[in-house]
Amino acid sequence: MTGAVYDTKHWFHERNDKFWPGQEFGLEIDEILHQQRSKYQDILVFKSKTYGNVLVLDNCIQCTERDEFVYQEMAAFLPLLAHPCPKRVLIIGGGDGGVLREVVKHPQVEEVVLCEIDQNVIDVSKKYLPNMSKSFKSSKATIHIGNGFEFLKKHQNEFDVIITDSSDPEGPAEALFEKPYYSLMKAALKQPHGIICCQAECIWLDLPLIKKMSIFCRELFSTVAYAIFSTPTYPCGTLGFIVCSLDKLTEPIDLQLADQLDTRYYTSDIHRAAFALPAFVSKELQLQKQ
Amino acid sequence: MTGAVYDTKHWFHERNDKFWPGQEFGLEIDEILHQQRSKYQDILVFKSKTYGNVLVLDNCIQCTERDEFVYQEMAAFLPLLAHPCPKRVLIIGGGDGGVLREVVKHPQVEEVVLCEIDQNVIDVSKKYLPNMSKSFKSSKATIHIGNGFEFLKKHQNEFDVIITDSSDPEGPAEALFEKPYYSLMKAALKQPHGIICCQAECIWLDLPLIKKMSIFCRELFSTVAYAIFSTPTYPCGTLGFIVCSLDKLTEPIDLQLADQLDTRYYTSDIHRAAFALPAFVSKELQLQKQ
Repeated sequence: MTGAVYDTKHWFHERNDKFWPGQEFGLEIDEILHQQRSKYQDILVFKSKTYGNVLVLDNCIQCTERDEFVYQEMAAFLPLLAHPCPKRVLIIGGGDGGVLREVVKHPQVEEVVLCEIDQNVIDVSKKYLPNMSKSFKSSKATIHIGNGFEFLKKHQNEFDVIITDSSDPEGPAEALFEKPYYSLMKAALKQPHGIICCQAECIWLDLPLIKKMSIFCRELFSTVAYAIFSTPTYPCGTLGFIVCSLDKLTEPIDLQLADQLDTRYYTSDIHRAAFALPAFVSKELQLQKQ
Repeated sequence: MTGAVYDTKHWFHERNDKFWPGQEFGLEIDEILHQQRSKYQDILVFKSKTYGNVLVLDNCIQCTERDEFVYQEMAAFLPLLAHPCPKRVLIIGGGDGGVLREVVKHPQVEEVVLCEIDQNVIDVSKKYLPNMSKSFKSSKATIHIGNGFEFLKKHQNEFDVIITDSSDPEGPAEALFEKPYYSLMKAALKQPHGIICCQAECIWLDLPLIKKMSIFCRELFSTVAYAIFSTPTYPCGTLGFIVCSLDKLTEPIDLQLADQLDTRYYTSDIHRAAFALPAFVSKELQLQKQ
């Protein structure tokens, strides 16, 4: 990875022949801040010229300070605002702290457990992404270092909302895109309103995977939907969540709360609009309308 | 431009220090198909590894065969489906023919005039983008080679819908982002339902320009709105249209038609959702809700 960074004359080029062949996104580097090989993955942090500090895991951009708010707000508020009483929340992954920062904003949330496999990601975020990691010290937060899969096996009927904030389906996050993991999440949800919201890749690059996930999710959950949002620094500029409920998914339940949250992307209108799928996507996924 | 293409070892890198400093998008080149300096701009067409043929004007990607359908469908159907009877349509720019291809699909459209400044763009598209340019031979289409600004001065109260399909506000398209041009479009519209839909850049890169445009549009039109869509090969993966009406803008008037059109992106749900703006955008633009 070091080679890749310096070979390209101070630009970070995000290329991936498996997941997005023939295309790349680049950011100009101001300064390399951190590089290490953790137990699980390559971790790189650089200061970019125009996107603030950038966290890269296994050569894939995870977040930049300029546009990270979109992912965090959508991951948190799509499930929280569709749940009538989201008191206990579990985040699997999310070691940068960004989703946690948004979840603790919700006034009904009493406790958030964050289960991250890689302590090094948390440490690096605390040092280089202070605005993302600031809620690790929230009184609502409990941090657990470990494998999300193993954590779920020990927790049943406990959480109102589970959010999976994972990297791509290669390396440590691979199992998080498969049915056994979704079955464990289902069992860990409280009846009858439990909702999950999980990172589910890109409509332009991963439609076969999203279709596979939507099929097994429909076997497990009463309602399955897919939501899309815009983020410049993800491949193709967009990413999506698969959102599933034991009960039914709704538009934001508390409209007043949805529009009074301290957000920069999320609104009640954006919440509804995110589930409108392009024709080529809805034809493939055949999901229910919200 | 030639230098840039070959220096980067068979990758086309879209960099622009003025409009998107510090970031770039790249496509792997299979074969350079065409390069010329026309009277107005540099024209490049290459065959990419994974996005089909790509048209580049003044070093900015205009369209790729893989994702061009989004722009064309949204440019055409956002205004056409909001108009009660869109018989006569004017396209300014659009020399690749893609918007024309979509507009002629609408059963109520009787005549489409396309006014493109650069004959070379039309010629190149006919040769290298056959699926985009196929409707130049439609019986509904009239092609006029000339300056859109000058064309509008000679046409008043003539068109139900005007679509501006332009490149970025530098070079031949610069005047198409300013108030005098919008005043001419207004005068060329038929009363009382006339609607315009114009390429209006990117929320992530051009918010000050979009704000300026929305302010002068509100001085001219009864209703002004901004619509967003996803396209991987535009900077930041997203682009928008400013949509203005002499009357009021509505959701799709004919829902059955909207969902029966032969489209791959546009649906009636997508139409409504496109106008939902992220909090940071709606705060700046202060536009009416649809």
